[in-house]
Amino acid sequence: MKFTIKRQVLLNALAKVSRAVSMKSPLPVLTGIKFDLESDGLVLTGSDSDIVIQTKVTQDINIKETGSVVLSSRYIFDIIRKINADEVLIYIADGSLTCIEATGSYFNLNGTPAFDYPRVDLNKKGIHLTINSLKIKDLIEKTAFATSESETRPVLTGVNFKVDGNLLTCIATDSYRLAQTKTSLEEESSFNVIIPKKSLTELSRIIEKDEIIDLYVSDRKVLFIVDDYIILSRLIDGTFPDTSRLIADQYEYELSVSSEDILGAIDRATLLADAEKSIVTLNMSADKVLLTSSSQEIGSVEEDLNKAFFKGDNLEISFSGRYLNDAIRSVNTKTVKLQFSGSMKPFIVKDMESDNNIQIVLPVRTF
Amino acid sequence: MKFTIKRQVLLNALAKVSRAVSMKSPLPVLTGIKFDLESDGLVLTGSDSDIVIQTKVTQDINIKETGSVVLSSRYIFDIIRKINADEVLIYIADGSLTCIEATGSYFNLNGTPAFDYPRVDLNKKGIHLTINSLKIKDLIEKTAFATSESETRPVLTGVNFKVDGNLLTCIATDSYRLAQTKTSLEEESSFNVIIPKKSLTELSRIIEKDEIIDLYVSDRKVLFIVDDYIILSRLIDGTFPDTSRLIADQYEYELSVSSEDILGAIDRATLLADAEKSIVTLNMSADKVLLTSSSQEIGSVEEDLNKAFFKGDNLEISFSGRYLNDAIRSVNTKTVKLQFSGSMKPFIVKDMESDNNIQIVLPVRTF
Repeated sequence: MKFTIKRQVLLNALAKVSRAVSMKSPLPVLTGIKFDLESDGLVLTGSDSDIVIQTKVTQDINIKETGSVVLSSRYIFDIIRKINADEVLIYIADGSLTCIEATGSYFNLNGTPAFDYPRVDLNKKGIHLTINSLKIKDLIEKTAFATSESETRPVLTGVNFKVDGNLLTCIATDSYRLAQTKTSLEEESSFNVIIPKKSLTELSRIIEKDEIIDLYVSDRKVLFIVDDYIILSRLIDGTFPDTSRLIADQYEYELSVSSEDILGAIDRATLLADAEKSIVTLNMSADKVLLTSSSQEIGSVEEDLNKAFFKGDNLEISFSGRYLNDAIRSVNTKTVKLQFSGSMKPFIVKDMESDNNIQIVLPVRTF
Repeated sequence: MKFTIKRQVLLNALAKVSRAVSMKSPLPVLTGIKFDLESDGLVLTGSDSDIVIQTKVTQDINIKETGSVVLSSRYIFDIIRKINADEVLIYIADGSLTCIEATGSYFNLNGTPAFDYPRVDLNKKGIHLTINSLKIKDLIEKTAFATSESETRPVLTGVNFKVDGNLLTCIATDSYRLAQTKTSLEEESSFNVIIPKKSLTELSRIIEKDEIIDLYVSDRKVLFIVDDYIILSRLIDGTFPDTSRLIADQYEYELSVSSEDILGAIDRATLLADAEKSIVTLNMSADKVLLTSSSQEIGSVEEDLNKAFFKGDNLEISFSGRYLNDAIRSVNTKTVKLQFSGSMKPFIVKDMESDNNIQIVLPVRTF
């Protein structure tokens, strides 16, 4: 293996591919990035047990001798980042000892033979679908935050992607709150899978421009093709819970409020609350809308939302301020609508016009 | 106690005073800031066992009723920071329960009675000296980083301030490297004290403009007066070691090098080295100056400093790259001079012209 390459081009590719690498991988070879220098380009592969990211660099590279090696993701990335030159020369000196050279800097890095790297199958197979890159990025942003951090119920650590006809519904829930977004597709299809949050976050990071993404859903895997990048993710086994019962038929109470106002009020009201739980109470009547919070030890806060508009009988409901904050940021409109059906019932956060993005927050008992 | 105050003014004062407060203080009252509302201004005091910072706000305040209370540093700071208004009203509602009000926001914060706060004596006493604020800020910046992090030898956790006639010498060492800076004073005096690093860092943060600082050195304390702020620090007991023997009479080897070049080389050469020790080797001859580093497991680096100029016989010396980095940044000139007297002798880093700022790094054995 021997080639010269524009430093910035290699750095960009390494930055993305190395996102798949976990330094904590029990397989030492997986803490590295596989370099496969083919006659027409450099294939870089990074992987952990959940995800594979692969790219092929064909521009700004001068190939002298094909070959392969696995280099520590951390060190090769740092070396390329810190080298003070526009171009670098990389070659295998002996076995898997790899030299990285640029003006005045000479690195010898112990590599691992490429045949020690697990074989990954990146073939396109299964159900094929195309989707706009910015659309899927938006879906991920509006749902992934609501997945569960706990491994107790693995299905909740991913986002449910359900396609029925040309309707794609994405749902995430940690069982205390839920995020659901719908979008229409160009073509019809049918599948129902759960994609790990981490894979979606990495997919989202790789998307940089408005383009068409190819998606292949097979039995246990999903493959995304974004520009020069291939991302393969495992799917989460199991059945995603039916969450439709969380959405009531009718809501008797409705609050319309400026997102900025209520976000500021939540921020201040949770100042004195337990950071983990951040419990706040909305106290609503036709005359007055108050967001309050108190802690016996520290003190109390009362925020007067005097520009909010409430419809319905008096209602008091307590919930996590942090979850409402997340929900409002996900809806991401100037004004939000909160719909309630009772003080111990899940409530809905959505934008004023559309039902495409629905956020649900479950109340908590405070007595 | 009852007053209104411009939010930004109170926030600035709290930001500085709260720097003296340690949330880990074993005395709960010291995790708070003392508010003393006098007829002509608001005195704010923060303290831990090492340092007291006090200021008096006399502008942009409307005093309605004098009084005192201690409020949790963390909560009062966050409340004032997040309140969305130009002015806040603060008053004691009942005992030490304090109300903080601004448009639409009503906070009740449990305080502590002011008489529970330890008495601090901020009287001006002892040897008096004046010094320019930017000069002392520069002295701190050039020395404090070299103090010891370990409490094994408490004297090394501070900077030695020694005044003899009108010469002020500041020395810090962790016994592996040393930073020494000299400056001349307007007036003559004589003292020799050790000031804790933390106190100097806080003093440095409070200094914002070019002005004259008053300094009072008494038996066990030093008092600084910076603008509207009073900073009282304990002194460290004990005798600072005599470090003059670390500076040789003669240096037979001398390296002149661009600071930018050698800093870049250190940065890359330490990439593969153990982060804690970051051992590098300088290999110098009239023809070639190389900075190298290697780790059996990971690999090796060789940096060619082809624009450096070396005078003397061939020399190889190993040391901590991190310490040399700190020393060069402290010298802070375009070119630095490194003077050596042997491969197992301390070496000097300084600027090309002056001896006012001398940095010493001790070599390490690598075999």
